[in-house]
Amino acid sequence: MANFGLRNLVLINPCELKEEAYYQAMHAKSIVEKSAQNTYHSLDEFLKKNEIDFVIGSTGTPGGSYNLSRIPIKPQELGESIDLNKKIAILFGREGNGLHNEEIDICDIIVSIPADPNYPIMNISHAAAIIFYEIFKNRNEFPVEGLKETTRVEKEYLLKDMENIIKQLDIPEHKEKTGLKSFKNIINRAFITGREVHTLKGILRKILMKFE
Amino acid sequence: MANFGLRNLVLINPCELKEEAYYQAMHAKSIVEKSAQNTYHSLDEFLKKNEIDFVIGSTGTPGGSYNLSRIPIKPQELGESIDLNKKIAILFGREGNGLHNEEIDICDIIVSIPADPNYPIMNISHAAAIIFYEIFKNRNEFPVEGLKETTRVEKEYLLKDMENIIKQLDIPEHKEKTGLKSFKNIINRAFITGREVHTLKGILRKILMKFE
Repeated sequence: MANFGLRNLVLINPCELKEEAYYQAMHAKSIVEKSAQNTYHSLDEFLKKNEIDFVIGSTGTPGGSYNLSRIPIKPQELGESIDLNKKIAILFGREGNGLHNEEIDICDIIVSIPADPNYPIMNISHAAAIIFYEIFKNRNEFPVEGLKETTRVEKEYLLKDMENIIKQLDIPEHKEKTGLKSFKNIINRAFITGREVHTLKGILRKILMKFE
Repeated sequence: MANFGLRNLVLINPCELKEEAYYQAMHAKSIVEKSAQNTYHSLDEFLKKNEIDFVIGSTGTPGGSYNLSRIPIKPQELGESIDLNKKIAILFGREGNGLHNEEIDICDIIVSIPADPNYPIMNISHAAAIIFYEIFKNRNEFPVEGLKETTRVEKEYLLKDMENIIKQLDIPEHKEKTGLKSFKNIINRAFITGREVHTLKGILRKILMKFE
């Protein structure tokens, strides 16, 4: 939960939380501690005392032996379509046998993680991590680290330099074309960064100077 | 691993596996049992004894305080572009402090999971679940085809040609290094195909000829 910016853990009819629960939470102990004030006897009680806009149920039995009319969506579809301005509850069932049918019936939507049919049942914390991750991926308020892809314009300047080089190589025109195309495809697939464009452009300029 | 159709767990310099390891594996005990025959003293030994086409490292420090020249891709980008016909190793580091810099340097590509900057460090089994899930997702939807990535050897010949070019450009040595490194990173991240290597090599050879 903490990895993906979530704060409110609600426990429904839980067992007693022992030392291990806090230990396993590592640096997110505060989430577990807060859950003590966020405990309910039943799902009904929780839904009555909180104004939840949208209830999402998670299930490990896709397609559904329980209820054929409930076709689950995939976590990615959930992440792409969920409205995070709404008050949303994501329900996870019991480790081992998940949510009961009556609980699934309460949900507005069911989400299920695609998995190997030979071993589709997932550890609840893995299932939660994957669902939270898919939702987080689409949250714009977090500057998602990773590749800072260059701009289209910078990329075009780089391709222009490459084109100038290729034009001077005395190779057949169709080979000029496939050469430039390959370079362009690689650049695009690599999600090239601004810094890398800068470095490569330096190299290409130097090559052009040696041609003069 | 079993949830997402993976079978080969390799342990490198592991601690002794106690009862708990087998217990936690639930119905995937066989994966843990098999790992006993799949244990190596060092990463070097593992790579020497197995012909791995592509080494993927996972890291929890995106953007890279460790090494600015290694920009990680996201799990989704990995899942979309990985060629599952190749022999691939995904490295996970130690719980707590991950992979060392020397281990990261060995990797062809680095993958990092976007997370809340307030708590970006992830439990290793959650990180693994998310990366395996992203790879599996794409196995389901597209019948494994996709990019036919080139071999390691072909890629090395290409890099050699690029190195020869850069060496002749009269630029400072550190710029030679970042230039070649950028080119290498782009080639790796793009999962360059055999055909593209062939085309690019043609171009680089022609450039070298013009230098003479």
